[in-house]
Order: sequence, then C-alpha cells, then structure tokens
Amino acid sequence: MTTKPKVLLVGMGGVGTIVAYGIQYTGKADVTAVVRSDYDTLTTQGFDLESVDYGNVKGFRPTNVYKSVDDAVSKHGPFDYVVFSMKNTPDIQPIEPLIEKCYHEGIGIVLMQNGYGIHKSVLKKFPTAYVISGVSMISSTLYGRVIKHVGQDAVKVGVCDNGKLDYAKQEQKCKDFIDLYSNDKNDIVYDEDVNYSRWRKLVYNATVNSTAALTNVDIGRLELFGGIDSIVRPAMKEILAIAKSDGVDLPESIIDFMIRSDDGEWYPPSMLIDIRKGNYTEYQVIVGNALDVAKQNNVPAPTLTVLYNLLHVIQWRTMEAKGRFVLPEKRPLPEDNFHIEFK
Amino acid sequence: MTTKPKVLLVGMGGVGTIVAYGIQYTGKADVTAVVRSDYDTLTTQGFDLESVDYGNVKGFRPTNVYKSVDDAVSKHGPFDYVVFSMKNTPDIQPIEPLIEKCYHEGIGIVLMQNGYGIHKSVLKKFPTAYVISGVSMISSTLYGRVIKHVGQDAVKVGVCDNGKLDYAKQEQKCKDFIDLYSNDKNDIVYDEDVNYSRWRKLVYNATVNSTAALTNVDIGRLELFGGIDSIVRPAMKEILAIAKSDGVDLPESIIDFMIRSDDGEWYPPSMLIDIRKGNYTEYQVIVGNALDVAKQNNVPAPTLTVLYNLLHVIQWRTMEAKGRFVLPEKRPLPEDNFHIEFK
Repeated sequence: MTTKPKVLLVGMGGVGTIVAYGIQYTGKADVTAVVRSDYDTLTTQGFDLESVDYGNVKGFRPTNVYKSVDDAVSKHGPFDYVVFSMKNTPDIQPIEPLIEKCYHEGIGIVLMQNGYGIHKSVLKKFPTAYVISGVSMISSTLYGRVIKHVGQDAVKVGVCDNGKLDYAKQEQKCKDFIDLYSNDKNDIVYDEDVNYSRWRKLVYNATVNSTAALTNVDIGRLELFGGIDSIVRPAMKEILAIAKSDGVDLPESIIDFMIRSDDGEWYPPSMLIDIRKGNYTEYQVIVGNALDVAKQNNVPAPTLTVLYNLLHVIQWRTMEAKGRFVLPEKRPLPEDNFHIEFK
Repeated sequence: MTTKPKVLLVGMGGVGTIVAYGIQYTGKADVTAVVRSDYDTLTTQGFDLESVDYGNVKGFRPTNVYKSVDDAVSKHGPFDYVVFSMKNTPDIQPIEPLIEKCYHEGIGIVLMQNGYGIHKSVLKKFPTAYVISGVSMISSTLYGRVIKHVGQDAVKVGVCDNGKLDYAKQEQKCKDFIDLYSNDKNDIVYDEDVNYSRWRKLVYNATVNSTAALTNVDIGRLELFGGIDSIVRPAMKEILAIAKSDGVDLPESIIDFMIRSDDGEWYPPSMLIDIRKGNYTEYQVIVGNALDVAKQNNVPAPTLTVLYNLLHVIQWRTMEAKGRFVLPEKRPLPEDNFHIEFK
C-alpha cells in the first residue's frame, strides 16, 4: 500500500495531461484522473505525448482513471489535492459542484485554469479551503489521442488567501504541491503575487485568443493579415489599463513580448482550437471577468467589449449545436415573451 | 430584329436574378446577363424562383447569357445600361475594369450594389458617365439554382451627379431605367436623395450583417442570444452619428425599424451567407467606407472598428482558402520582411 500523497486531477486535455505526467515523473504522488469523453481511449490506449519537455512518450496513462469524481473518491479518496485542469466555463460547467464531491478540511484545491478572479466563487462556497492558483504558460494541445506539447510546462503557483486560516499554513500547502509537481524538465515556481501573473497571462489570452477564435486563423496568420496591429494591440492596452485599476502595474513592453511569444510557430491558440472543435470557450473567465473589473473601476474597454459580446453569441450557438436547447421552427418575437428552456 | 433597349446585367445572384426577371417581366427591354460560376446551370436548366413578388417560376433564364462582358458586348453590344448586381468587393474584384469593356458615351451605369460612396471610384475613372445608384431593400438569396426571394423587390433609384453633364439629362437617363424595370409587383421608385437611402440601408448592413457573419447565426438567433442589444444597437448608433456628420439626419426610430425588419423569419443576412459559403464579404464598402467618413469627420466608432478589423482578417483568410496566395510552411516573422505575393 502506497503512502504517497494522492492527487485527483480533473481534466486530461493539453494542460492536464502534462501536469499528470509531470507529477508521475517526480514519482512523489499518485495521480487519479477524471475524464469523460476520452475515458475509453485513455484506459485502453493511453495518450501519446510529443512533448518539448519529456520527448515522445507512447501510451501514457495516469495511475488511476475514472469517469467521475464520485467514482474516484469512492475508490481512492480522500485526496490530498484536487487539481482542476479542465476548461474553465462557469456558464456551462461550474467547478463548485465537483469540489463538493471531494471536499474535506485540508484538501488543496489547485486551479490550474485560465481566467482572472476564478478563485472567488470557490472561496465563496468553501470559505476555509486551501485554494491554490496555478498560472500555466504552457503551449500544449490534445488532438485525438496525441498531445502536441510545444511550449515548456511553466507554471506559477501561488496562494489564494482565504483570510481565515493561518497564511503560513496555506503557503505550506501550496509549496508542498509544488514539491510534488516540480521536476528537472518543467519550470514550476512559487509565486508570491499570483494576481500579477494572472493579469499578465490575460494580456495574451483575452486578446490573441479571442481574436484568433473570432477570425478562425492562427497567430501567424493573424499577424500577416493585420489583426495583431488592428485588434490585438488595442485590446492588450485595455487589459493593461484594467490591470492597473486593479493595482497590477504591467510594463508596456509586455505587449510585444506576448505578441512574439509564439514566434516560429503558426500556433493556433486554445480558444481557436475550441471553436474549431465546436467546443465551448472560456470567454467568460478570460474576457468577461476582466470586463467586470473594467466596469467596476470605470476603465473604458471598447475593443474587449465587442470581442466579449461576439464570443457570448457564439457560446450560445455552441449550446444550441450541442443540444442544450431547441428553438422553435417559427422565430419567436419580443411580443411572444419566449424564453430559452434548457434541457 | 428588336428595337428594345438593351440591358447588360453583371451578376445573377439573389438580387441580380430578380432584377433581370423584373425587367423581362415588363417586356420593355432585353436582358443580357453575365455570369461566371453558374453559367452552365443557367444556360441548361435556368434558375427556379420562389418569389414573394412573382410566385414560383421554373427554369428562368435571361434573354442572353454570357460568361464575360467581352463576349456579351461583341455579340449584343452596345448596351443602353449596364447593371452591376454582383457582389461589391473592390478589394477583390473592382468593377471599373468591367465598365471599361462596355463603356461608351451615353451608357447608364447602374450600381445595384451594397455599400456607401461606391460611385466615387466609378466617376473618378469615367468623369462624364451617367452613374445611377440603386439601393435595394430586397431579401433574396440564391441557394444552388433556387432563388429564395422573401422580401419584396423594393429599390430606390437615383442619380450620382457627375457634375459635368446637364443634371436633367442624367435624371432622364435614370428615370428611363426605372421605366424599364418598374412593374406591378415590385416597388421601384425615383429617389432624389439617394445618399440618404444608402446611409439608411447601412444602418442594417453595417451592423446586423457584420455581427451575424462574425458569430455565424441568423438574425433571429442573434436577437435571442443577446447580440442585437449588445453589438447591433451600439453599432447602429455609430452609423447614425457618422451619417449625421455626412449631412444625413436619420431618425433614432430607424434603429428599431431595422431590427424588426426581418421579423417572422430567422433570416440569415447576406454577409452571413457569404461566410457560410466561404465567399468574400462586402465588408469594405459596407463597413470600411463608413469608417472612412467617421475618420474624416472625427466621429468615434469603436464597435464598427472592431467588426471591420475582424472582417478584414477573415477576408484574407478567404483569399488564402481560395488560393490567391500560398503561405510558407515555416511562419515568417517581422525580421524576415516577408510579403504576401498574389498569384
């Protein structure tokens, strides 16, 4: 019987798979993964990794794989950590109900997800929880059962202070997680100001991601076709202004740094991949949450506002395509007082 | 041998086909159509019309059909009028070279096309030409070889004064065209202020069209999914402000009138159809030309600017998809000084 710490990992996509592999690579923890659509593939064949960090790996699978958090908890719980590396779509699939299924005092909840301010709803529901924020700068995508991992697994990990428990204890919980995960290939560092890192990442995600998704071109084409200068740069300036209003002072130079961060690759950003696959996008936590801060602090953000509103319509189109609701054959008009009913 | 006036019509899509049918319906003119991709279909089977004006018509074809303006002119020229009902994409296919092939002193050039200020480039090239502006409010789309014509053929026709010829002569040329085209089913009227009508139409086209195209939903879904309120209304307000700076005072009430103009139908606007078919869009004349006026008159138009810039990237994506250029396998970077070369 193992005495290793137990990590529950929810979501085996481009990010989650590399996190799982990175933890198993250290040998310091057992990883139990929860996956839904890829369950059969993962349990029979595993995933193949073409990884800039770990090289070519055939048929990787985590120690344990289950279809649901319930199953994982009843077979292998309680867990020391639950890592959320699934997509962050609170409008579609909020994570709090999943946390509820594995929660106990002392579990570390690691949010290895995109977006700004994503810990707020977790701490609201679990006020004394250890919440850990992981800001990943990885470039990694799952195509079928192949992980194409082209940008190093670099993660900044920090504490989302719950204000209830001793901060040193929360910090220790966070650093213990880093110890399980950090190895000679990846770059996992403790981050005293994870809020800064989240805004920093948003400079890329809220702008390049959104624009690539809306125009259906990778970042290379986006640059050649004029979109970087006409849309991404103004949108990045808006993020910098919003961050500043939130007390985070990012240097102007971050704009060119981010624009050049995928150089050498045509690279399709994650939100573009989502759109191409017909999946939901993380527009709410990536753009919407930033706009909430803009509104609160009266910072103008005209470019991001249009991008957000377009992505919102597309999210609803995706809901319809996925059968979340069915519209009547005859178009309802305002006077019909029609409301969309979810299945 | 006929002595009827001869009309050359370039472009047999949803608009052009109904114009051709409307003119032949009056029996007052012969129509020679120029089509490219649908040439075989049109000459062998013709188009079927499901028309709100003319009912169900099987196998309609214009009197003469040719693949090029050159062919049409050599077989049936000179023409009394040339009607452009093809898509208006000056960035892809400018019309001036086509006018050149059929031009003679006295020909009436009818621009039955979308956009604002589209006569300017024509008059620049042909300063003493009779240029006639046709602002169509039709709803009609070509699917395969079937025209689905759901909104009446209503056109405002007016003079684009060349400032060289006697205005009364230009007016007569315009009214003579209306006489050939107007019948008991359609609603073709002389318009003293065609600039007003063009701005008025832009209230719809620059906003509903663009937003539907970018989100890939029809106007019914656009409304249900929130896009009418979040994007279309602000964009419409910007058009009203730009028009005002151009001396055209449109009433606020036009906003709700336009939003409700497709009621009863889910209706996919023309630019959405273009996108769905993988075709070029008329973003340049519909949104770009309006933004040129905004810039000139210092009118802020943040929403339209983002819509335009996104559509611009998509136009280039379409050019690539249509093989207008080929990008290298390795992504070029700014220091490579790479320029796209058109075939």
